[in-house]
Amino acid sequence: MKQWDTVAIVGVGLIGGSVGLALRERRLARTVVGIGRRAASLRKAKQHGAVTETTTNLPRGVAKADLVVVCTPVEKIVEQVRQAAEHCPAGALITDAGSTKATIVVALDDELRDGVAFVGSHPLAGSEKVGPEAARADLFDGRLVVITPTRRTQPKHVSQIEQFWQSLGARVVCMSPQAHDEAVAATSHLPHLLASALAAATPEDLLPLVAGGWLDTTRVAAGDVELWRQILSDNRLHVLKNLDKFEKVLSSFRTALERNDPAKIAKLLEQGKQTRDAVERGH
Amino acid sequence: MKQWDTVAIVGVGLIGGSVGLALRERRLARTVVGIGRRAASLRKAKQHGAVTETTTNLPRGVAKADLVVVCTPVEKIVEQVRQAAEHCPAGALITDAGSTKATIVVALDDELRDGVAFVGSHPLAGSEKVGPEAARADLFDGRLVVITPTRRTQPKHVSQIEQFWQSLGARVVCMSPQAHDEAVAATSHLPHLLASALAAATPEDLLPLVAGGWLDTTRVAAGDVELWRQILSDNRLHVLKNLDKFEKVLSSFRTALERNDPAKIAKLLEQGKQTRDAVERGH
Repeated sequence: MKQWDTVAIVGVGLIGGSVGLALRERRLARTVVGIGRRAASLRKAKQHGAVTETTTNLPRGVAKADLVVVCTPVEKIVEQVRQAAEHCPAGALITDAGSTKATIVVALDDELRDGVAFVGSHPLAGSEKVGPEAARADLFDGRLVVITPTRRTQPKHVSQIEQFWQSLGARVVCMSPQAHDEAVAATSHLPHLLASALAAATPEDLLPLVAGGWLDTTRVAAGDVELWRQILSDNRLHVLKNLDKFEKVLSSFRTALERNDPAKIAKLLEQGKQTRDAVERGH
Repeated sequence: MKQWDTVAIVGVGLIGGSVGLALRERRLARTVVGIGRRAASLRKAKQHGAVTETTTNLPRGVAKADLVVVCTPVEKIVEQVRQAAEHCPAGALITDAGSTKATIVVALDDELRDGVAFVGSHPLAGSEKVGPEAARADLFDGRLVVITPTRRTQPKHVSQIEQFWQSLGARVVCMSPQAHDEAVAATSHLPHLLASALAAATPEDLLPLVAGGWLDTTRVAAGDVELWRQILSDNRLHVLKNLDKFEKVLSSFRTALERNDPAKIAKLLEQGKQTRDAVERGH
């Protein structure tokens, strides 16, 4: 028995396309409808096997959906969830994959029509790659998905969304939308900002000399500009708070170098290594 | 015909071990002597096939070497090259693999005894991994090696060292030691410092939430602390100059976030992406 009859995916890029591929490979849905603005992307997603039907018309695309997954840039999500809620069957479930949660979840915390429910999600499975051609059926395998219910979210809807992501191979944790945004400012948004600033600060004539270190450290700077612009704008207060923290460490490094203080330089490097090694062991 | 009769490698970690493996796999040397402080590392390097003989005695290890490659942390190199020059055969060639060059090359620019010659090298092929077990015969394949001759270096010695690295699969460029240090401050040393500061600034309780972006951006922070402490100490003036440049970009990001200026945030992200994409195309 299929877990879902019809799943509608709004936005069939890396995340949306991967949701579709995982659903189809695991035979979890009878029909997967891909909804997007551009016919070319939808065609690619269908060729790639991520969706079984496509449409550029959101109301029509969600008309028979038990589950709608909105995988578009964060500034689109509220409006598209509202539109989906208007046109999907009564009792349908809606989630998203946005990298920020507070603005979205607060805006959607009022009751939607006819028992339609929204639960916010954020799969920590992004990449600098974009588009349906980067999608992979195993993108969520062993990866973490944060779901962000509120006091108004019904426990059965939390369970259903939890099971949905688990059925795609992910591990799930629940957090409040605010705690989520605060956390990912440190673990994802600040790293992106630093990678981007480092790439931008590297003189062009030295690029032939970059090697593994620079390439790793700046990798995410290749990510989609508008996608990340929206994330940084939405979560700017938490990002700024974490930037303060980072700049304190950076200023200690500066002082240690200015004073040529080997013990202090070693201590700072040691702190970074300990944190990095702790994570490597955990992954 | 072998290119070398005897090559001595001082320090059989990632770089030294990989030099040995590449020499042996490509049958470029009859004998490869591994020289190190710790018998355990030397044993591992020999088991791994990186060297054919081992000794903890540098004078004895270089006694028959046509070529000595010093692959130890930067603060050891000058002393070990001098010691090698004392005890190797007349006319032998010495190079190193240090990540900084000016201090080393300036210190060794006086004539060494009996036509023994030193040419500084820096293979841009490091990694956060350490030790002979991380060594790989293909580590230098297609990678860049900077060699840093001076006005006193004889052209034939430059050619020999160039051919040596090319024979291991590397591409070679010549730079002055000072230009090298200035360049790698931007392309390698500052990225290391930032990765380390980012890792150190990440609160421990959030580590379960890190994903690909944080892992890439901080990867090099797992590198050997003392190795990198010496590099940052030695090259601190250039690193500080590049830190200034980075902090200017960072401060533009801060202002853009504080003012909630979407166009400016997008412009900064776009600059980072353009630089990053330019490199990806070239690699």
